Amino acid sequence: MELDFVAGLLARIPPDPRLEVPPGDDAAVLRPTAGRRTVVTVDMLMEGVDFILGPDCPPRLVGRKALAVNLSDLAAMAARPEAAVVAVSLPHRHGDALGRGLLDGILELAAEHGVTLAGGDTNSWDGPLVISVTVIGSVPPGRAWRRDGAMPGDLLVVSGTCGGSLLARHLAVTPRCHEALAIAERFTVHAAIDVSDGLSLDVARLMQASGTAAVLDLTAIPIHPDAVVMAAQPGDGRSPLDHALADGEDFELVLALPPEEARRLVAEAPTMVGTPFTIIGEVVSGSGLAARAADGTVAPLEPRGYIHDFGA
Amino acid sequence: MELDFVAGLLARIPPDPRLEVPPGDDAAVLRPTAGRRTVVTVDMLMEGVDFILGPDCPPRLVGRKALAVNLSDLAAMAARPEAAVVAVSLPHRHGDALGRGLLDGILELAAEHGVTLAGGDTNSWDGPLVISVTVIGSVPPGRAWRRDGAMPGDLLVVSGTCGGSLLARHLAVTPRCHEALAIAERFTVHAAIDVSDGLSLDVARLMQASGTAAVLDLTAIPIHPDAVVMAAQPGDGRSPLDHALADGEDFELVLALPPEEARRLVAEAPTMVGTPFTIIGEVVSGSGLAARAADGTVAPLEPRGYIHDFGA
Repeated sequence: MELDFVAGLLARIPPDPRLEVPPGDDAAVLRPTAGRRTVVTVDMLMEGVDFILGPDCPPRLVGRKALAVNLSDLAAMAARPEAAVVAVSLPHRHGDALGRGLLDGILELAAEHGVTLAGGDTNSWDGPLVISVTVIGSVPPGRAWRRDGAMPGDLLVVSGTCGGSLLARHLAVTPRCHEALAIAERFTVHAAIDVSDGLSLDVARLMQASGTAAVLDLTAIPIHPDAVVMAAQPGDGRSPLDHALADGEDFELVLALPPEEARRLVAEAPTMVGTPFTIIGEVVSGSGLAARAADGTVAPLEPRGYIHDFGA
Repeated sequence: MELDFVAGLLARIPPDPRLEVPPGDDAAVLRPTAGRRTVVTVDMLMEGVDFILGPDCPPRLVGRKALAVNLSDLAAMAARPEAAVVAVSLPHRHGDALGRGLLDGILELAAEHGVTLAGGDTNSWDGPLVISVTVIGSVPPGRAWRRDGAMPGDLLVVSGTCGGSLLARHLAVTPRCHEALAIAERFTVHAAIDVSDGLSLDVARLMQASGTAAVLDLTAIPIHPDAVVMAAQPGDGRSPLDHALADGEDFELVLALPPEEARRLVAEAPTMVGTPFTIIGEVVSGSGLAARAADGTVAPLEPRGYIHDFGA
């Protein structure tokens, strides 16, 4: 029996008024909300690189993550998720079960965030599983959070906690979409990025895009309990703080806001969105990163994290 | 040295007023044209399945095709191409040269069709090349060509010629975007599909979506010269017509139009868009396909073409 992954996916999607033409045609036709911009992002995950299928990594979690990393990008733009299209290359062997699992994970997270599945492309081959999800969101004109708007004097704020994601939660990603939309309505945010490759590396990218530098307060970095567990493992040789600064796959938000806005966000966020936000440093003139230690001394900080290698 | 494929791609894209935020942020922000729908389609191509890199198949043609197959989907919706995002998995070995070639092919075709590159995702691995392109287009409300609008009495028209694409042109795809947009402005089209998997198979899909049947006139099918060459190869055992009906990867348009519109299109198309269109049959009540032979006899026709196998 044959399974067309995308046909199976589309058959399970409830009708959505945002689609002018039902899924299954040559392309999807979306009704964009008048007066809003269209936000687009794509991510590809590959078996053996981004995940290794097994008891700890069922296809459902891979499907979830493939959508989640894109939703995290939308959150970093303060964009509302609208629709997704999915392209997959399923291995011939076990492709059926794999496809069903992917579907479950995608549909589960799509429902949580009001995403409609608009179409896709199913392929199969003798190679490993590859899944590419493109997500479309919307945002009012001029209101997308950008990377290049941080200003000296801003404070840097991070959602949740960082580090140790590989231990458990790097697959069960919770994108900060609800938080981002609530904050965008109530706060002035100068710049934003999501933590995909490592807190210090992604802060460095935010600063580079803005033409500014950051001083991170090392005593303020919110450390995930999993970072503590990983640091305690024999042979790890890194501190929980090291993990928080460099592990990545946290999919938390880093925001640069004026000081009074940052402080108000930290005070109001737990009741407003149920997620803690923490001030982790400040934006200053210059370039690069510095770190302030517990004794108040400031020293350059080398950004660390996952650097994609595209070798020759 | 590292090459970030997507960064390299974006650096070569001229600034485009359709992008509110320059490429390189967490996601792209597009300014949709007011009052138009957003059309989205995705296709993934895999090395060893959709192409085999070599002297006859340089990376440039793979890049071109990855975009072209999506543009062909937009053409089949009468949608104007606007923007694309690209996700790739480059093999570690030769990934640099491969990436540059892909870029050349994508940018070349994008320029031909007014497509801006809005973003992407670069990955590398020990596996084969995988490229997934998502294209975004636009169309006035209610004006997208659908598969489900063919009506008994309509005539079926195909652009160009079919068959033998594997011999040479399945990589150097020329999507029928210009033709589609010109036709959409001047003609009443009831339904449309592009020929990706085989003329008879794709006509059958069009008929199935419309709840109608088709009678194809076998003497009228426009046959590409490459189909004749392939049929003459030792051991081929198929006629040029067989190739035209089943080969696929022609990326021609099949349209269902009222008879007077179809005849006018066939008469005007060569001067209007420089591409011949041919009446190949008619839409009738019922289901499935039939074929009318030279002697006027009509017999059922089994749709043939490339059927994707998603086996368990």
